[in-house]
Amino acid sequence: MIVTVTLNPALDLTYQVDALVPHGTHRVTTVAERPGGKGLNVATVLHALGEPVLATGLLGGPTGDRVTGLLAGVGVPAAFVAIAGETRRTVAVADRDDATGFWEPGPRVTAGEWAAFTDHFGGLLARASVVALSGSLPPGVPIDGYATLIRLAAAAGVPTVLDTSGEALRHGLAAGPDLAKPNAAELAALLAAPRPVMAATRNTSQPGPAGALGATRAAPSGREVADATVALDHGARAVVVSHGPLGLLALTGQGAWRGVPPERLAGNPTGAGDAVVAALARGLRDRTPWPHLLADAIALSAAAVAAPLAGRIDEDTYRRLLPAVRVSAA
Amino acid sequence: MIVTVTLNPALDLTYQVDALVPHGTHRVTTVAERPGGKGLNVATVLHALGEPVLATGLLGGPTGDRVTGLLAGVGVPAAFVAIAGETRRTVAVADRDDATGFWEPGPRVTAGEWAAFTDHFGGLLARASVVALSGSLPPGVPIDGYATLIRLAAAAGVPTVLDTSGEALRHGLAAGPDLAKPNAAELAALLAAPRPVMAATRNTSQPGPAGALGATRAAPSGREVADATVALDHGARAVVVSHGPLGLLALTGQGAWRGVPPERLAGNPTGAGDAVVAALARGLRDRTPWPHLLADAIALSAAAVAAPLAGRIDEDTYRRLLPAVRVSAA
Repeated sequence: MIVTVTLNPALDLTYQVDALVPHGTHRVTTVAERPGGKGLNVATVLHALGEPVLATGLLGGPTGDRVTGLLAGVGVPAAFVAIAGETRRTVAVADRDDATGFWEPGPRVTAGEWAAFTDHFGGLLARASVVALSGSLPPGVPIDGYATLIRLAAAAGVPTVLDTSGEALRHGLAAGPDLAKPNAAELAALLAAPRPVMAATRNTSQPGPAGALGATRAAPSGREVADATVALDHGARAVVVSHGPLGLLALTGQGAWRGVPPERLAGNPTGAGDAVVAALARGLRDRTPWPHLLADAIALSAAAVAAPLAGRIDEDTYRRLLPAVRVSAA
Repeated sequence: MIVTVTLNPALDLTYQVDALVPHGTHRVTTVAERPGGKGLNVATVLHALGEPVLATGLLGGPTGDRVTGLLAGVGVPAAFVAIAGETRRTVAVADRDDATGFWEPGPRVTAGEWAAFTDHFGGLLARASVVALSGSLPPGVPIDGYATLIRLAAAAGVPTVLDTSGEALRHGLAAGPDLAKPNAAELAALLAAPRPVMAATRNTSQPGPAGALGATRAAPSGREVADATVALDHGARAVVVSHGPLGLLALTGQGAWRGVPPERLAGNPTGAGDAVVAALARGLRDRTPWPHLLADAIALSAAAVAAPLAGRIDEDTYRRLLPAVRVSAA
């Protein structure tokens, strides 16, 4: 099974209003509740594809109970560790034009709760084929929390996909995830940060597939490729950078590829990156060749854009676009 | 004890953000939760004044449980009827300038739940000295729901204060509450609505204190007084109209008065009207002479403005302003 980790999940509320008027009072016409957090979207997409999946992470309080109930409602298997703090909410206020988001801070996680989670995670690894680690870290989880989980997975021979940002990404990369999936903005932030000494050490002592980094660095085909190597420099064994509707760029041990969607879809881009992670996790498990994997990730991402809710996919769009995605060497 | 009725309570969330940017994403710096709904503010203010009070109404689901817990946390006695639907939330996004409000619709109440509430309410009347009925009606409660409760209270000899708006106000007035407290905007909406035939019938068959309406109508001292008589025409035995920082106007069986705050206070006006209702309910119970009662309501309203949270009062402001409020015949 594919294990998805969501350390800072949320109860996502979407409020429909006519038009957002700052400092006005709005009667909300409809309220939608869904399990929120990038890792939960990954799990929901994998479950919709019929893939065996288990969602784990940290949940607490009545809001955490609600998330558990909503996950059960869509049939996603879950095994979360309970914390004393209360799971956060996010509120998206949708009007005729766009959405305005309000993100509560996550609950504070104690050292004991984090230790309980790493134990729990270690126990799941025996049954895991791939681990996907997604989203932000709540207060109290060490900034190198993802690095800890990546090292535990590596020791158990389980490949990892990391999708986070900022310091959590930088520290996570140092543990050598098999695949990192920053978007262009997250990559830019990483470029602006100092390169850790740790990463170079790791690349020497635990090299990725033969010639991987050398081949990639020898043949950059543009600024984007050059930028993407920063994730490899920080420690990732491969990187897939999402450029929104412009597609994906992969730098891997087997080569570098660029994939472009066959058409531009209107819709809801929230959750599109999580659909990419779902495809990547499945592809890592199946050792899918990179060009095919990139095409699958792009079609699934477009299918997420075509579905109105994050974490859902439009299966017709997926089937229609998959044969039409163009992937070429970068 | 004073019974406060809140049929459509809420869990009030206040999100602090730096500045509201429409269609942007905001990290919420702090989240405050409090029991919400006008009747709960009335109960909280009365409890802070040391008055015996019981909060009742309808609560459901985990959000209803949270409201129950928060009320217990501030020590307000409560006896709510449980409903299957979930109590709503309200979100107020506060930035440096002001607040932007989002109000979820209330849960749907079934006919059986409404019948259970009227039974429960009837049982409370034996111990009630006054009933305060505040706020909107949730879906499913009959539009003349307040009229039903006012008639039950009248039959038990318990006076009522009604603070609602729109159709719920218009239908509630027809049952002859002892006191209605519309604000100026609610009164304007009532003026625009057709006058029910019912009210005239009731005024004839159940006259208020001798000469009340006649005396008031004979000596209008301005447009506001003339406007306020519409509430009496619709059936209320007395009316107190709140004009925000400009004060209160009372048309009663004993005469008409206007009260003006001695100074203009900066602060949070949310809940100021509920503090007025708290004062009026206490005054009805004690048969406080109208001029004194109006002064008390104005000082308590100012004390609510001076407190940062709705449902709270600043007791120093209350004590300081009470002797200084000016009340004169209107």
